[in-house]
Amino acid sequence: MKVIIAGAGAMGSRFGLMLHHANHEVVLVDGWQEHIDTINNNGLQANFNGEKIVENIPAYNQSEIAKVDFSADLVILFTKAMQLDSMLQSINSLLHEDTKVLCLLNGIGHEDMIKKYVPYQNIFLGNTMWTSGLQGPGKVKLFGDGSIDLQNLAQGQEQAANTIVEALNQADLNAKYSSNILSSIYKKACVNGSVNGLCTILECNIASLGASSYANTIISQIVDEFIAIASAQNIFLDKDEVLTQIKSSFDPETIGLHYPSMYQDLIDNKRLTEIDYINGVIVRKGKQYQISTPYCNFLTELIHSKEEILGVR
Amino acid sequence: MKVIIAGAGAMGSRFGLMLHHANHEVVLVDGWQEHIDTINNNGLQANFNGEKIVENIPAYNQSEIAKVDFSADLVILFTKAMQLDSMLQSINSLLHEDTKVLCLLNGIGHEDMIKKYVPYQNIFLGNTMWTSGLQGPGKVKLFGDGSIDLQNLAQGQEQAANTIVEALNQADLNAKYSSNILSSIYKKACVNGSVNGLCTILECNIASLGASSYANTIISQIVDEFIAIASAQNIFLDKDEVLTQIKSSFDPETIGLHYPSMYQDLIDNKRLTEIDYINGVIVRKGKQYQISTPYCNFLTELIHSKEEILGVR
Repeated sequence: MKVIIAGAGAMGSRFGLMLHHANHEVVLVDGWQEHIDTINNNGLQANFNGEKIVENIPAYNQSEIAKVDFSADLVILFTKAMQLDSMLQSINSLLHEDTKVLCLLNGIGHEDMIKKYVPYQNIFLGNTMWTSGLQGPGKVKLFGDGSIDLQNLAQGQEQAANTIVEALNQADLNAKYSSNILSSIYKKACVNGSVNGLCTILECNIASLGASSYANTIISQIVDEFIAIASAQNIFLDKDEVLTQIKSSFDPETIGLHYPSMYQDLIDNKRLTEIDYINGVIVRKGKQYQISTPYCNFLTELIHSKEEILGVR
Repeated sequence: MKVIIAGAGAMGSRFGLMLHHANHEVVLVDGWQEHIDTINNNGLQANFNGEKIVENIPAYNQSEIAKVDFSADLVILFTKAMQLDSMLQSINSLLHEDTKVLCLLNGIGHEDMIKKYVPYQNIFLGNTMWTSGLQGPGKVKLFGDGSIDLQNLAQGQEQAANTIVEALNQADLNAKYSSNILSSIYKKACVNGSVNGLCTILECNIASLGASSYANTIISQIVDEFIAIASAQNIFLDKDEVLTQIKSSFDPETIGLHYPSMYQDLIDNKRLTEIDYINGVIVRKGKQYQISTPYCNFLTELIHSKEEILGVR
């Protein structure tokens, strides 16, 4: 299968490497020139569960990809949320009428952006539990196991979804068809929407957040807003199940001692956050469905205030 | 006039010193033993607009004041909000049926606590623009001018309020009778309720807060909640006027470069904040009047979360 990895950061590099290793025809597209040059000169290097491997995969800057002659069967979207629009513009000329587009971005509601560029029946949504670490330009660290669930957005595209599942499984990506991917995506966003923004604004790790009784009250309110917005779209979440998953992240033995990616983006690296694609989506859909979402609203505004105060653009 | 200063911190010390200097009979009551001992041994020392003065005023620990033979005409309450209840218990035996009690605490709704101990007709509320700095035990720095507005809470007590005004003016405290003290108190609380909590949670000074467009959106929401709760009590605030006052605090030439007292309490000194007596009152009264106050609610919960995360008790 001819696959474009659109956004070859840590996760995109994992998928690209594993697919290429399984003899799929892969190109990587990214915006980081040093990363691209290193991959083209030395191959994509990985510490793959302790073993050093190199895959020679062509890599292109987003700004030059339009000129490349590559007719993709599948595009896997792995950009940061705020880069999605410009990436879709850049790769637009490489899509033909049957090119399938699988969105694996963090956050919710990306289909609203993708459908501006891609026919609805070609859009597929996924949710992955794989992890990956970028160690420097052209170098990734790939440890542990993962999985990926995916589903067609349009009715009648189950067969096409299963073809993608098969391609991913040829690369040992542990894919399976999901009959309710939006529910999984909302559930994951609900965890991120509770933990990421609060740890960032309170400048604490996940375990400290979980140890605060007041923070748990806030989390319960945020989860209620996510559930209300999901329900309005006929996506059903069980609150107890969501809270149990959130609470499991508090455990210092699992990820409790970690600072969420949003904290790392804003506090450590002074980068813009993805808040508009997590809690901010709830605010926008709340306006659309006339559902009040004050906690997501206030949290989104607080994170943007903090970005402004830190001078992050 | 026989006056108890209940809470002899920076501001209580100013009032005590100026009243004693004007030949009122004053006792100071506080909980900080070193401060009390220093005052009793060396007098209350002040740098009063550049001039060193000393007033020998008897000072008592809150725990021993009940045994003191002093029948007060006026009590001026100047504790931190969370110490008000225990202070009122401590001084209770020194109040007689005509003892007037003037509340000058920061925040709103203290009358709900005071009326548990004091007949309603004896309660007076004030709002002061004086400032003061505590430099160490027994030492204050008193610079600049100020003023104080006050009013009776019960109808028909205007005469008694004016008697207090006169006593304060004998001490050059620039007091005047107010016909709508609750409005002034709510307006001040509205400024504090917008600036203090947000600067604390965003860890920034007042000017930085004011420079953030998102923070201004948040402030507008918080002000709306204060105004709604005030209205429910027939206290009327003009939103434009309140926002103008808040914006004037952003100016680096005035107090913009300062960190609010709540920031100093929690971030610098790891002390509990007064959030329950500012935004928290709006939440409590919102429940009472069935008015939704999500921004005050979330901000109160965030500040308490931060207290818990910092291990402040």
